[in-house]
Amino acid sequence: MTEAGNLPKYYRVRTELAAIVAELSEGDAVPAERDLAARFAVSRETVRQAVRELLVEGLIQRRGRGTVVASPKLVQPLSLGSYTEGALSQGRVPSRELVAFEEESADAELAGELSIPIGAAVLRLERVLLADGQKIGLENTYLAVRRFGALASTFDPGTSLYAAIRATGVELGSATERIETVLASPRDAALLDSTTAMPMLLLDRTSLDTDGVPIERVRSLYRGDRMAFLAVLRE
Amino acid sequence: MTEAGNLPKYYRVRTELAAIVAELSEGDAVPAERDLAARFAVSRETVRQAVRELLVEGLIQRRGRGTVVASPKLVQPLSLGSYTEGALSQGRVPSRELVAFEEESADAELAGELSIPIGAAVLRLERVLLADGQKIGLENTYLAVRRFGALASTFDPGTSLYAAIRATGVELGSATERIETVLASPRDAALLDSTTAMPMLLLDRTSLDTDGVPIERVRSLYRGDRMAFLAVLRE
Repeated sequence: MTEAGNLPKYYRVRTELAAIVAELSEGDAVPAERDLAARFAVSRETVRQAVRELLVEGLIQRRGRGTVVASPKLVQPLSLGSYTEGALSQGRVPSRELVAFEEESADAELAGELSIPIGAAVLRLERVLLADGQKIGLENTYLAVRRFGALASTFDPGTSLYAAIRATGVELGSATERIETVLASPRDAALLDSTTAMPMLLLDRTSLDTDGVPIERVRSLYRGDRMAFLAVLRE
Repeated sequence: MTEAGNLPKYYRVRTELAAIVAELSEGDAVPAERDLAARFAVSRETVRQAVRELLVEGLIQRRGRGTVVASPKLVQPLSLGSYTEGALSQGRVPSRELVAFEEESADAELAGELSIPIGAAVLRLERVLLADGQKIGLENTYLAVRRFGALASTFDPGTSLYAAIRATGVELGSATERIETVLASPRDAALLDSTTAMPMLLLDRTSLDTDGVPIERVRSLYRGDRMAFLAVLRE
């Protein structure tokens, strides 16, 4: 086991830098790497490793050519509610940017999840989720055309999908959500203004209506440095 | 946006390697890096980047000097239940290794979470969680001594803490759990046979009894390559 006496240098710098950051306010500039290297008497590479860790954990973030103290992570409740409701409950301003809204055909896995025949038509809605103008998530929703095909012409992708689903008379009854860490593809990282090295949180959800019939399958990729989830558990 | 035609080389290798791995069985050897480099006509460094991604996502894992196809992630239900119950429900054999079981005094944050005075005595129980003999999590539990002090002499750290708490007549009523990605300290990474570069899932939980009085505060660090969580959500 590593004891305090022989901690790696980068980790000592990381700990001290985290303490410096804790004294600063959101948006304040983090001291430059060369100044930190001089201050801690370590190499630039050692400072960079410490900075990388604080970036991954979301304590600091890049802004333009500099690095600033980050806003706290958005803490999203795990619930049947929408991203919009969760962000608003945290005092953040949610918005969405449309990436794709198109018809595809279901492969075997998706067909099973939506209880439709393999090859049946599905609507795929892909949107970037933002909080206070920052990109934090990339959401892919799949809906069976035979059930929700009308949304292709009536749904405004800038609005809440759940509100539109409810407006068709369908009520969400339950959802199963799998949560894990993954890395983004180069495409998804670019859509999130992030990198393929940044750990992401993947939420894979299947929602059922109050009769237990599948409504949607959703694959949401969230920036691990910008997002946390909150679960309230009861007997 | 990155289109298929100009994907980074490592990502093409990653995709093809993932397809190769999907055809193999758990525990099978992954082809050596030099063989993969020759097969895909790329540098060893490009192969290494692809391998690193599959390691982070838990599709493959190191075994001795080689790399093998990994077992699926352990999928732990988010529930009031214990780690033991969750692992057993997935057909895995759970076990625990004691790291520390000692008395400390509560700092301001912990005191607030446990509704005890700052500086009051707490029991800290730190254990490595294993599934089928593999280290997958590091759990730190804090209990107020004034409520659970007897456990210091009666509790066997190789057994379920929740069973011991129930045996004192206290029933779990609810818990709040925050889930996010973090990096492990060098000490914690070593305890988990992992590295400081591996994304971890941090679960921070406060459990209350059926009267709403705090029972415990738990900080559980799970290897992101070995663990996923499952939430079942209802109205």
